[in-house]
Amino acid sequence: MSLLVVGSLAFDSVETPNGSVDDALGGSATFFSYAASFFTKPRVVGVVGEDFPDEHRRLLAAHDIDLSGLVTEKGGRTFRWKGRYHQDMNTRDTLEVHLNVLGTFNPQVPQPFRDSTHVFLANSSPGVQAAVLEQVKAPKMVLADTMDLWIDTQRAELLRLLPRLDGLLLNDSEAHLLTGENNLVRAGHAVRKLGPRFVIIKKGEHGAMLFAEDGVFVVPAYPTDNVLDPTGAGDSFAGGLLGALASDNSPSPGRLRRAMAYGTVVASFTVEDFSLNRLKRLERHEIDERLEQYRKMLSF
Amino acid sequence: MSLLVVGSLAFDSVETPNGSVDDALGGSATFFSYAASFFTKPRVVGVVGEDFPDEHRRLLAAHDIDLSGLVTEKGGRTFRWKGRYHQDMNTRDTLEVHLNVLGTFNPQVPQPFRDSTHVFLANSSPGVQAAVLEQVKAPKMVLADTMDLWIDTQRAELLRLLPRLDGLLLNDSEAHLLTGENNLVRAGHAVRKLGPRFVIIKKGEHGAMLFAEDGVFVVPAYPTDNVLDPTGAGDSFAGGLLGALASDNSPSPGRLRRAMAYGTVVASFTVEDFSLNRLKRLERHEIDERLEQYRKMLSF
Repeated sequence: MSLLVVGSLAFDSVETPNGSVDDALGGSATFFSYAASFFTKPRVVGVVGEDFPDEHRRLLAAHDIDLSGLVTEKGGRTFRWKGRYHQDMNTRDTLEVHLNVLGTFNPQVPQPFRDSTHVFLANSSPGVQAAVLEQVKAPKMVLADTMDLWIDTQRAELLRLLPRLDGLLLNDSEAHLLTGENNLVRAGHAVRKLGPRFVIIKKGEHGAMLFAEDGVFVVPAYPTDNVLDPTGAGDSFAGGLLGALASDNSPSPGRLRRAMAYGTVVASFTVEDFSLNRLKRLERHEIDERLEQYRKMLSF
Repeated sequence: MSLLVVGSLAFDSVETPNGSVDDALGGSATFFSYAASFFTKPRVVGVVGEDFPDEHRRLLAAHDIDLSGLVTEKGGRTFRWKGRYHQDMNTRDTLEVHLNVLGTFNPQVPQPFRDSTHVFLANSSPGVQAAVLEQVKAPKMVLADTMDLWIDTQRAELLRLLPRLDGLLLNDSEAHLLTGENNLVRAGHAVRKLGPRFVIIKKGEHGAMLFAEDGVFVVPAYPTDNVLDPTGAGDSFAGGLLGALASDNSPSPGRLRRAMAYGTVVASFTVEDFSLNRLKRLERHEIDERLEQYRKMLSF
């Protein structure tokens, strides 16, 4: 099995009530691929500018991430995002966005990546996501993320994409926005009716809900007492989830739920430090140990 | 084992995006005792006015609720609450409160109730809660609810009460208010340091967290797609929880978690209709069936 992610690599400047970082390594493809790399060897398609340091490439490559689909745009600057988290750490304001090289990026999936079995279309316009999907031969599992901007401005394109997905990831307010349903359970079912085989609604510190053929499943977030920076939690969740799926051949009906638990646990490590700092120190056995704690926590 | 609740019986007027009721049967002791009555025979101490109809007494008595501690104040009017839920059903505005007979109520625990083993001190001033506790001989398990008003205005009294409790129930914003901690896990541990043996933080549609000797446990809410009226959910949760504990003699360490699951399931029925309407139609086997669904939903 082989896992492809198409998404952003970024410099994040983040302020939280517990500290701040400037121009730290971030981006959806970064968090996703690093999280997934605890399970499999992810392939990245993305773009950076000439300001993207070799140090970051080495960090990712050393963790078994295949960067041969990473384009460096001559004379370009890497995507930058600046945000500030509120006291509750569950809401944030975007202070600055500089798309830079991401603004005109037209992702090309290299020939050797076109046989990928698992694909994550990180948050991007549904048109770009569809164009990427065209380039993958016969994916077994395609998961996409989206955001309020596309629901508002490119609804038709998004609605065309949804039936081509296995899974759609979105947060609670986006599920409301897409369906008009206020009840999250109804909203989840309503999104599924739009085409994806399963839907995952992310609720930040409150966990996630899965809507699938065999019903609704709920996972609380792993209760960590040390949340330094929630940036990247959603993409780490997706990376842990799809990484676990891509490395799990068992036909059991609980695969998706187990993968969600892995995603939850990996995301709980991500938020314990800024940028990739906690993941950089993380070892696979810690993931499995926390997964067991989490399992006990949910059993009665 | 015997379960005592001291709390309110009320007429609730509720507006939600899905409908409204006027002067419907409500109150903390009402929801708590009805929820608990699926497990044990609860004893109620409370006060109503002469306007409280026999029909309501018959409803509760018919469900094995002992009303011999219910005082009817001559010439008095029953406590009334009026509220309106927002579109998300997780927040509400209180439009009117008429304490009426509740304003001067000084609860007396009847002699035959003083041997109660399990006690729920529903939301009330910590002074009143302490005075009730004095009247119970040797309770094995005392659980209390509180609210922002008492944390703000009677903090000293509340802090004196906490070490006398086994468990304290409060919601997420109240836990922040009481401890100054924004991270819920830290807030839960901090509340426990104030005295109660365990702490349950209620998060509405997002479930609840338990902080106990043996660690932190998280339970998501049961995902019902039919939320008509959240009023009484918290007290139903407490009633299911303490009712299950009062009827469960097993020494297993998972008792409290299993009780929380029962509380969660009973509360999920409460919100499916206004007032006690769903609980009135509920049968015990439905609780056990939903508990099994819920257990499956959380396993991976």
